[in-house]
Amino acid sequence: MKCRVCRGPAVIDVRRHNANFCGEHFLRHCREQVARAIKGHQMLEAGDRVLVAVSGGKDSLAVWDILVELGYEADGLYLGLGIDGYSPESERFARAFAESRGLSLEVVDLPTDYGYDIRGAARSAKRVPCSACGLSKRHLFDEAAERGGYDALATGHNLDDEAAVLLGNVLRWQGEYLGRQQPVLHAGDGFPRKVKPLVRLGEREMAAYCVLRGIDYMVEECPMALGNKHIGYKEALNSIEERSPGSKHAFYFGFLDRAADLFVPGDDDRSPIRACVRCGSPAGAEVCAFCHLLERAGGHLPSNGRDVPVRLGRPISEAR
Amino acid sequence: MKCRVCRGPAVIDVRRHNANFCGEHFLRHCREQVARAIKGHQMLEAGDRVLVAVSGGKDSLAVWDILVELGYEADGLYLGLGIDGYSPESERFARAFAESRGLSLEVVDLPTDYGYDIRGAARSAKRVPCSACGLSKRHLFDEAAERGGYDALATGHNLDDEAAVLLGNVLRWQGEYLGRQQPVLHAGDGFPRKVKPLVRLGEREMAAYCVLRGIDYMVEECPMALGNKHIGYKEALNSIEERSPGSKHAFYFGFLDRAADLFVPGDDDRSPIRACVRCGSPAGAEVCAFCHLLERAGGHLPSNGRDVPVRLGRPISEAR
Repeated sequence: MKCRVCRGPAVIDVRRHNANFCGEHFLRHCREQVARAIKGHQMLEAGDRVLVAVSGGKDSLAVWDILVELGYEADGLYLGLGIDGYSPESERFARAFAESRGLSLEVVDLPTDYGYDIRGAARSAKRVPCSACGLSKRHLFDEAAERGGYDALATGHNLDDEAAVLLGNVLRWQGEYLGRQQPVLHAGDGFPRKVKPLVRLGEREMAAYCVLRGIDYMVEECPMALGNKHIGYKEALNSIEERSPGSKHAFYFGFLDRAADLFVPGDDDRSPIRACVRCGSPAGAEVCAFCHLLERAGGHLPSNGRDVPVRLGRPISEAR
Repeated sequence: MKCRVCRGPAVIDVRRHNANFCGEHFLRHCREQVARAIKGHQMLEAGDRVLVAVSGGKDSLAVWDILVELGYEADGLYLGLGIDGYSPESERFARAFAESRGLSLEVVDLPTDYGYDIRGAARSAKRVPCSACGLSKRHLFDEAAERGGYDALATGHNLDDEAAVLLGNVLRWQGEYLGRQQPVLHAGDGFPRKVKPLVRLGEREMAAYCVLRGIDYMVEECPMALGNKHIGYKEALNSIEERSPGSKHAFYFGFLDRAADLFVPGDDDRSPIRACVRCGSPAGAEVCAFCHLLERAGGHLPSNGRDVPVRLGRPISEAR
């Protein structure tokens, strides 16, 4: 097995590209794929300040690493979800990576700063944990990116993630979600620009990237996500990809090229955006969904107002 | 486990309906689902004469049986594909069913009547076997239905089949196929009306239907289809259905309700339809795709013209 670029010994094969790579050229391949995604979907411009949503897993650490390699000013925000046996370990990986690179990482902890955790919120709001978690993450990452004046919020969603979400939306033909499933969502109505620079790279490639770059990451999946539908969709797509390499790529990018526009939701479908009376974030009603969740879960906004505890843009040594 | 209808002992559970049935009420359930599909999609009207495409498998024998039970005049056409270890056995099941019910079954044999078989045609036309087979079946069933003056051609495609085809089309976002994937295709341009009365019933239900009705059928899948993509799509959907019963139904009928119209191909996409100069069937070019296949496979049209060998509408005892 020889590297496609230099014909030296290869360390990884990427079946959907019908290519093998040595370590050096695989890392270059990953950076090129990210640069291509950023350029092709107009995610970022040179000099943009980016906030990276960091979980401590391979994808978020890899996207942070690559964005820095590509020359972007990228800070991290880690959100502690209060999940025993998962959150403390994830946080350690996130902190260790930031320290090793001298990067700025802010840490927000739901139990400490907002008085609730995902398990309790899910129970009291009668949502599945992944739903309460997704709502919390969207709200807090969006808010932090807006408040910190970042040009964009970057997440580590990779091709496997996006294809699985797309499959779930297609299985239910949820037009309003299909119309929104883009690798970049533009800023507006109080929301930051959101970008997914890893959409051209698969899960296995991101794991290999981290190994080759010496990035230690949280390998375990979140215990609360076990058995959720998203994992089932990934497995279904993996079995298809196994028979026909390239299927996921064709599915996701074929959708973007030839079908996504069909599902753009009309303006009538959008609730008028106003500011939540409690936290000031954009909301479809008087109180935003996050503040509703907080109320049901018995949580609270940070004691000294909504500008705390997020303190971004400073080296991790200054963060709490 | 009790029957939903009569509370007697149940013999089958249908998870996506969250229902169990005794034998009698399961058979009634199947007939009702077929009647509902026929009515809901305007497949047939009372008194219609129907040609059933019969393979000897559970689906085609069940749809024939149910159509007769529902009062339609339904004849069968069996197509011998010349596949060793598969075709002769399938034909025996088809003949035995027709004889036991006193129904009219016509048998066309590709090697005898057209001078080719699927394996050879696939090889010489450099197609996969399922492609050569599908082309042959579509052409010969369509032609027979038109020539016999039937109101419609019925096939045994069930919910599992249709959901798997839909998944394959969606994975590649093939708009022109998606626009055509309907449970009923209306007659026109020399093509007969085509209907799929089993779209509301799954594979497992059709097997149970045959067992309960005492219908012997060919259990083995076609050996040439082993490992094809369609089977992979079925497996992927089965794993999703296993976690979330009702997923296939929601996928297929959600598509029909909310997405199929988005993909209707414009008239511009259709080749002008003319008559094939060799066989007279509708063609997009001077010679139709079937006659091209025949030529490459070294086959021939039936020696005494295109009105032979199909002799429909007579009891099986009169057929060859």
